[in-house]
Amino acid sequence: MGSQLQSSGEEDLLTLLHGAGIGMESICGGMGVCGKCRIHILEGKTTEPTLQEDDHLSEDQLDRGERMACQTYPEGDLSIYIPASSLTSSQRLQLDCELEVKEFEPAVRAYDLEVAIPASPGDLDSDLLRVLDALRETAPAAEVQRVDLAGLRGLPAILREEEGGVRSVTRRGELLGLLSVQRKPLGLAVDLGSTKVALFIYDLSDGSMLASRGFLNPQLPHGEDIITRIQYAMEGNASRLMQLVVQGINENLSEMLEESGSTYGDIFEMVLVGNTAMHHLFLGLPVAQLGRSPYLPATDLPLEVKARDLGLELNPAAVVYLPPPIAGYVGSDHLAAVTASRLWERPGPCLLLDIGTNTEVALQLEGRIRSCSCASGPAFEGGGLSQGMRAGEGAIEAVCIDPVSGEPQLSVIGDAAPAGICGSGILSLLAALVGAGIVDASGRMQESYPGVERRGGELVYYLAPPGDDASVGVAVTQNDIREIQKAKGAIRAGVDALLAQEGISHTDIKEILLAGAFGTYIDPAAALSISLLPPVALDRINQVGNAAGAGARSMLLSTAVRQEAEGVASRLEYLELSAYPGLSTLFAAGMYLSEEAVNTAKRRFKL
Amino acid sequence: MGSQLQSSGEEDLLTLLHGAGIGMESICGGMGVCGKCRIHILEGKTTEPTLQEDDHLSEDQLDRGERMACQTYPEGDLSIYIPASSLTSSQRLQLDCELEVKEFEPAVRAYDLEVAIPASPGDLDSDLLRVLDALRETAPAAEVQRVDLAGLRGLPAILREEEGGVRSVTRRGELLGLLSVQRKPLGLAVDLGSTKVALFIYDLSDGSMLASRGFLNPQLPHGEDIITRIQYAMEGNASRLMQLVVQGINENLSEMLEESGSTYGDIFEMVLVGNTAMHHLFLGLPVAQLGRSPYLPATDLPLEVKARDLGLELNPAAVVYLPPPIAGYVGSDHLAAVTASRLWERPGPCLLLDIGTNTEVALQLEGRIRSCSCASGPAFEGGGLSQGMRAGEGAIEAVCIDPVSGEPQLSVIGDAAPAGICGSGILSLLAALVGAGIVDASGRMQESYPGVERRGGELVYYLAPPGDDASVGVAVTQNDIREIQKAKGAIRAGVDALLAQEGISHTDIKEILLAGAFGTYIDPAAALSISLLPPVALDRINQVGNAAGAGARSMLLSTAVRQEAEGVASRLEYLELSAYPGLSTLFAAGMYLSEEAVNTAKRRFKL
Repeated sequence: MGSQLQSSGEEDLLTLLHGAGIGMESICGGMGVCGKCRIHILEGKTTEPTLQEDDHLSEDQLDRGERMACQTYPEGDLSIYIPASSLTSSQRLQLDCELEVKEFEPAVRAYDLEVAIPASPGDLDSDLLRVLDALRETAPAAEVQRVDLAGLRGLPAILREEEGGVRSVTRRGELLGLLSVQRKPLGLAVDLGSTKVALFIYDLSDGSMLASRGFLNPQLPHGEDIITRIQYAMEGNASRLMQLVVQGINENLSEMLEESGSTYGDIFEMVLVGNTAMHHLFLGLPVAQLGRSPYLPATDLPLEVKARDLGLELNPAAVVYLPPPIAGYVGSDHLAAVTASRLWERPGPCLLLDIGTNTEVALQLEGRIRSCSCASGPAFEGGGLSQGMRAGEGAIEAVCIDPVSGEPQLSVIGDAAPAGICGSGILSLLAALVGAGIVDASGRMQESYPGVERRGGELVYYLAPPGDDASVGVAVTQNDIREIQKAKGAIRAGVDALLAQEGISHTDIKEILLAGAFGTYIDPAAALSISLLPPVALDRINQVGNAAGAGARSMLLSTAVRQEAEGVASRLEYLELSAYPGLSTLFAAGMYLSEEAVNTAKRRFKL
Repeated sequence: MGSQLQSSGEEDLLTLLHGAGIGMESICGGMGVCGKCRIHILEGKTTEPTLQEDDHLSEDQLDRGERMACQTYPEGDLSIYIPASSLTSSQRLQLDCELEVKEFEPAVRAYDLEVAIPASPGDLDSDLLRVLDALRETAPAAEVQRVDLAGLRGLPAILREEEGGVRSVTRRGELLGLLSVQRKPLGLAVDLGSTKVALFIYDLSDGSMLASRGFLNPQLPHGEDIITRIQYAMEGNASRLMQLVVQGINENLSEMLEESGSTYGDIFEMVLVGNTAMHHLFLGLPVAQLGRSPYLPATDLPLEVKARDLGLELNPAAVVYLPPPIAGYVGSDHLAAVTASRLWERPGPCLLLDIGTNTEVALQLEGRIRSCSCASGPAFEGGGLSQGMRAGEGAIEAVCIDPVSGEPQLSVIGDAAPAGICGSGILSLLAALVGAGIVDASGRMQESYPGVERRGGELVYYLAPPGDDASVGVAVTQNDIREIQKAKGAIRAGVDALLAQEGISHTDIKEILLAGAFGTYIDPAAALSISLLPPVALDRINQVGNAAGAGARSMLLSTAVRQEAEGVASRLEYLELSAYPGLSTLFAAGMYLSEEAVNTAKRRFKL
C-alpha cells in the first residue's frame, strides 16, 4: 500500500491501523480471540508473540513474520503488509432489491406559498401566522398547527429574501421550515446492519432516488457480533458506539449530497431500520437488558425523534422515523423485509429468511406471521473459520469439485489470487465437499480422499495449495466444517420449529424468500443440497435482495406502508427459540448435511 | 470593596469589571453614550479621557479622577472606587404579587405504577410497552401514546433499580420519564424581563411553591434597553445573548435546587413569559424584523419546545411552554399580567399598566381588551438622568419638600448616603417639585426658588449638597425634568389614545391596575398629581405587584389558565401607537404636569 503511519509505540497495531482509517477485520474487537487481524511484519522490531497468537498462528507462520495486529506493539520503525483477507475496506456491499415501492405518499410534503410581507404599520400579523394562513389556504388538508423551533428560526430571513414566494415543508401537522422554490425536500432511508450500513437519498417531491451508498458499520472494530458490541457498550462505551454510527452516516451522507448537488438542509426526514441492538445503540438506549435473558428491548414501539437529538446532520428540523423492533433479536430490519416483500399477501405457507450472524426467519400462514431469531453465528460471514473472510477481493465465492479429476475449481471475487472464503463460498464449498464424498452427511472429512491432508493433527482440504512465495494457500479444516454445520443447524432448527409450531410440513411450503446479502449471493441449490433449507422445489426459492433496505425505502416514501408495517408489527407473533422445548434436538438434527440424515436424526430423537 | 482583578491592559475597565462578575450599570452597552458606568480612579495611570467622557463629565469631575469605565484602559496598577450608583448588583427585585392562582391543573402529572419485571423467557413485552400498559390501567384518561427519547433512555435502568415500583411523569399524552417514588416532579416559572429575571420553583404534585429568586438579566452589560440589545444581536451576538440568559437561569436554578434538596432532573416543565425581544432572543429567533417598522414578531403563537433544544439544564425530557407574544412591543409578559389579573372579568372600563422602558397599557371595556406599548424610555428606571440609578442602596426613593422651610426631605434605600434617584423617587420628586412650585405645569424650573441654582448654564435643584469629602451631592436638573416629562407624556398619550379609541372618558374608569416593580413602589398620589395617570379617585388605583410573574406561575400550575391566556391573546386587539394619527399631540399634551394644563393643551390641539 505504501502508506506511512506515526506511532507512539503505546498503541497496538490494530488500534493504530483503525485510527488511520484502515478497515481491519476484527470480530472480537481486539481481544486476541478471533485471529482475523493478521498482518505480516516485513521489517523492524515488535513485541514478542502473545499466548493468543500462539493459539492462532503456527510456529512456521510466526517465523515468517505473521502476527495478529491486536497483539503486536511496534518497537521502532516497522514495515508491514496487510493481506486482503484482513482488510474490510473493499468488501462487496449489496444495496439493491428487486422489490418495488408501490405507493408514493410521503410524510413530508412541500407546498409553494405566496406570503405577503407587510410594510405598513397597520398589518401586524407575525411572520409565522402569515405563513400558516397561506398554508391553510393552499393546503387545508395538511392541518398544520405546530412549527419546529429550528424552522421558525429561519422563517423571517427566507420570507424576506424570497419576497414571500417560498416552498413550505410540512410533516404530520408540523411546519418544518421554508425553502426557496428552487430546492426540494429530500429524504434518507437507512438500513443499519451490524456489518453494513446502506443509505438511500430520495427526492420527496416525486419519489425518485437520487443516490445510494453502502459502507461498513464503523462500530466493526469494537466487535463484529452483537454480543461483543453490547459488552463494549456496557463497559461505558455506549455513546462512543452511537457516535461512530452517527458520524459514519453524516460523513457518507455529506459526500453523497455533494455529488448530487444538494445540502444537508434539504433532508427533512429519515427512516432507519436495523436489528434491535443497532436500533438501541443508534438511539442511545441502554442495551444491558438486551444482553441477558429474556433479552427485552427498551421499546418495541415505533418512534419519531428529532434528528438533532441524535447529532445527525440533516435539516435541523428533520425527523427520524424508526419502525418498531419486534423483539430483542428480531429487529425493525426484519419488519422492513416482511413489509417490503408483503409477506402477508403471498400464497402461504411461505418463509422469509435473512441469513447473518443472527438469522431471522418468518413463517406466514393464512396471513398470520410468526418470526424467530436463530443464533447462527458468524460462520456464514467468515467468522470462526480458519480462513473465512468477507465478500471482498480475493474471497472464494463458489467452489466446484471436478467429478472426474477431483480437483477444486474456484470462483474468486475480483479474479484475484484466493485469500480466503466468504459466506456464499462456504456454502458452495460444503455442498461440493458433500457432493464429492469428501465430507459425509455427519460432517466428517474423509482422510482417504485425495487432497485431504492431516495438518497438526487436523484434517484439512486444500482449495489452493501453499505457494512458493510464502503464501499459506487456502484450505478448509474439519473444524471449519463443524462451524458451518452449527450455523446451518441453528437456522434449520429455527425453520423446523416454526413449521412444527404451526403443525405444517415442508411439503406445504409454497415459497421461500431469501433476503439480505448472503441470501442474494448464495446458490439456492447448494443450500438445499446440504439441508440448510427444508426440501422444496428449487423454483420455490426466490432471492429478493436487500429487502430490509427496500422496506426502509418504501416506508420513507409512503405513510401508508408505515401504517401497514406498524400493523404487522403489532400482529406478528414472536417465537422465542431459547424457550422452545425441542430446540436442542432440532438443532442436533439440523446439523446433518443431507435431508435423509436430518430426517433419520429427527426420528431417532422422536421428533 | 477591596477586590483585586488582573488585567492584560487590552480590555477597558467596564469589560474587565463585567468579566469579574461585578454588575456595572451600562445602558448603552459600553459605547460611551449613556455615561452610567462612572468610576473614580483613586491611584494609578490610565489612558486619557475620550471625547465621550468630555461630553458626560465636567472638567472638575475629570480632575477629581471620575471616569467612564467603558472609555478607560489601565496603564499599570490601578486602585478604583465604584460608586453605588454605578453598581447594579444590590438592586431591589420584586418577586411577589398579590394575585393568587385559583386552579391546580398542571400539564405535568405523576402516576405511581407497579410494573412487572419479567424474568421468564416467555414474557416478551418491551420495557416501554409494560410501562404504557400499567399507565393505561392506572390513568386511562392520561392517554399516553408517546415517549420522550431521553425518558426512554432512562427507563430500563430505573425499572430494574426500583423493581417496577416507579412514579411515571407524563405531559399531554407523552411519557417524559420515570422517577423513584421518593421524588416529585417540579416546575419552573420564569418572568424574563429585560432588566430582571424572576424564577419560581413549584412542586407539581401539590402546587406548593418551593423557592423563588430574582436576579439581574445577564444581558444587561450589552445594553439596558431593548433596541441596544437587538442591535447587539444583529451584529452577530444573538447566540451570545441567548447563552447569557440560559446560563443565568441554569446557575440560579442550580443554587435554588440545591437549597431545596432537589435536582435539575426533577424539573419537567418550565413556563416562560417576557417581552417579545426577550422571548425571541431566548428562543434563538431572529430579532432583525423586531427592530424595524412594522416591528413584526417571528411568531405570535404559543410554543412548546424541548428544554434541551435551548441548553436549559432541566430534566432532559422537560418541555418549555411559551405563551404567545401579542406584538413586537407587547410581549407574553403583558399577556401574563392580563391573565393573572383576570382583566376581562373585572368591572370595566379598567386599565392595566406595566411601567418600564416600554410601558404596556391594556384597556378592558365590556370584556374586550385593547393593548398598546408606549416608548416611555428609561427615565423611570433612572436612564438618561444625570443622577438616575436603579432601586438599590443609596437610591432616593421618595422626596417631600417641607412646605414651611422649603427643605427637601429624602427617603433613601438602605438608609445610606444618597447616591442618586431611582424610578419611584423620580416620580415622587417631580410631584414634590410641582407641589412646591419649584417646577411649573409646563416643567420649567423656577430660578427664583431657594435651592435652585445655575450650574454650567443649566438650572439644578439640590436634594443633597456636595459634601466636603469630594462627593458631588445629588441634584435634579432642568434636563432631568424634561426627560421625565417625555416618559410620562408617552405613557399618558398611550392611555389617552386607548380611551379615545373606545370613545370613553377618564371619568368612566372603574379601576387602574399598576403592575411590575415600578408600579409597586410608586406613590399613586404622586402619579395622579403630575397627571401620569388620568384623574381618577385614588382608591380606584390598585398596585398588583409582579403580575407577569404571577401569570407565569398560574400558567405553570394550570392548563386551564393557559387556555384562557391563549384565548385572550387571540381576542386581544393591539393598537399600534406609531400608526395612531393623534399621537404626537396627545404626547405633547401629556407632558404637562397638571391635569388642567393637559386639558388646556388638548383643547388647543383640538383633541
